Amino acid sequence: MPANEIEQLIALLAKLPGLGPRSARRAALHLIRRRDQLMAPLTAAMARAADALQTCQDCGNLDTQSPCSVCADPRRDPHVICVVEDIADLWALERTQSFRGRYHVLGGTLSPLDGVGPDDLNIGSLLKRAGNPGVEEIIIATNATVAGQTTAHYIRERLAETGLKTSRLAHGVPVGGELDYLDDGTLATALKSRRSM
Amino acid sequence: MPANEIEQLIALLAKLPGLGPRSARRAALHLIRRRDQLMAPLTAAMARAADALQTCQDCGNLDTQSPCSVCADPRRDPHVICVVEDIADLWALERTQSFRGRYHVLGGTLSPLDGVGPDDLNIGSLLKRAGNPGVEEIIIATNATVAGQTTAHYIRERLAETGLKTSRLAHGVPVGGELDYLDDGTLATALKSRRSM
Repeated sequence: MPANEIEQLIALLAKLPGLGPRSARRAALHLIRRRDQLMAPLTAAMARAADALQTCQDCGNLDTQSPCSVCADPRRDPHVICVVEDIADLWALERTQSFRGRYHVLGGTLSPLDGVGPDDLNIGSLLKRAGNPGVEEIIIATNATVAGQTTAHYIRERLAETGLKTSRLAHGVPVGGELDYLDDGTLATALKSRRSM
Repeated sequence: MPANEIEQLIALLAKLPGLGPRSARRAALHLIRRRDQLMAPLTAAMARAADALQTCQDCGNLDTQSPCSVCADPRRDPHVICVVEDIADLWALERTQSFRGRYHVLGGTLSPLDGVGPDDLNIGSLLKRAGNPGVEEIIIATNATVAGQTTAHYIRERLAETGLKTSRLAHGVPVGGELDYLDDGTLATALKSRRSM
């Protein structure tokens, strides 16, 4: 059996998403073998991240400053707010370099079975931001999952009274995707939402 | 884009086996969100492991002591040495609780293309241990991959002059496995190695 120190390291690594017990064991061995090249820099990077990072008071993004660099950037369009479930989704949209507005991070999806209600998500602050003068459109970019779509519907209803324009991401064939490999639901939606060319 | 501190953390996490760029991003977010419950204990566990662990001078196992707890255990049979590629394989065999001999960790497999020759593995120390009086059998438990089997053959040839009994793990149908899902090679070997019942 591995020594106690390894067991503890494995148990903690196994709590990371994407690492099961087997890959946590491999990761622990990898770390111990590369103490100087990997383990020490990782320890330092974690300490730096824990010190430096804070949650943006406006949008819920993680950054070294609050308001975050997106909210504080005067070149970003304050008229459009894109609502995402998670910070990773914000990063994904930023990587496309095709959105120049602001974000709002919900911090999850509504999930009555898990006891996650509207008060557990950053919905109140979204409604408050939506009431700010100058805001014109809310793009609800939650995931295309049941939980994500339920949350999107709830937010749209709560936003209805503000009279703001609300939109959602288009469904369709992924760029580079083959029809034969696509699920029926996506294909049917792509057909229904076809565009003249 | 994520802040610099997060980018660095993601880049280091992505070096762990089993974590790609996407799962490294998720792991970094997970760590930052759970600073006190997960990140701090993980930092501490890594520091403890780096401090306490050393490589066993006899078998190459990782432990808080050298000789390791397996080599130092007088109840373990010193007549049989089980040769494994990696410490994770040693752990896997220990979990079965069906081997009571000693181990020898090679630290990899022969791989001429990657420049890994016999001198890069713990083969010299294995030959030396094999010459100790009292050693009777060497079980070569390398993986059933091409690299593992090549290494096993090389070790068997080097051990030939010692006159020791050498053995390898049995091939066959995994316990609980279904024939229909098994690769042809394994099934053919299982048929050839069938045992009377």
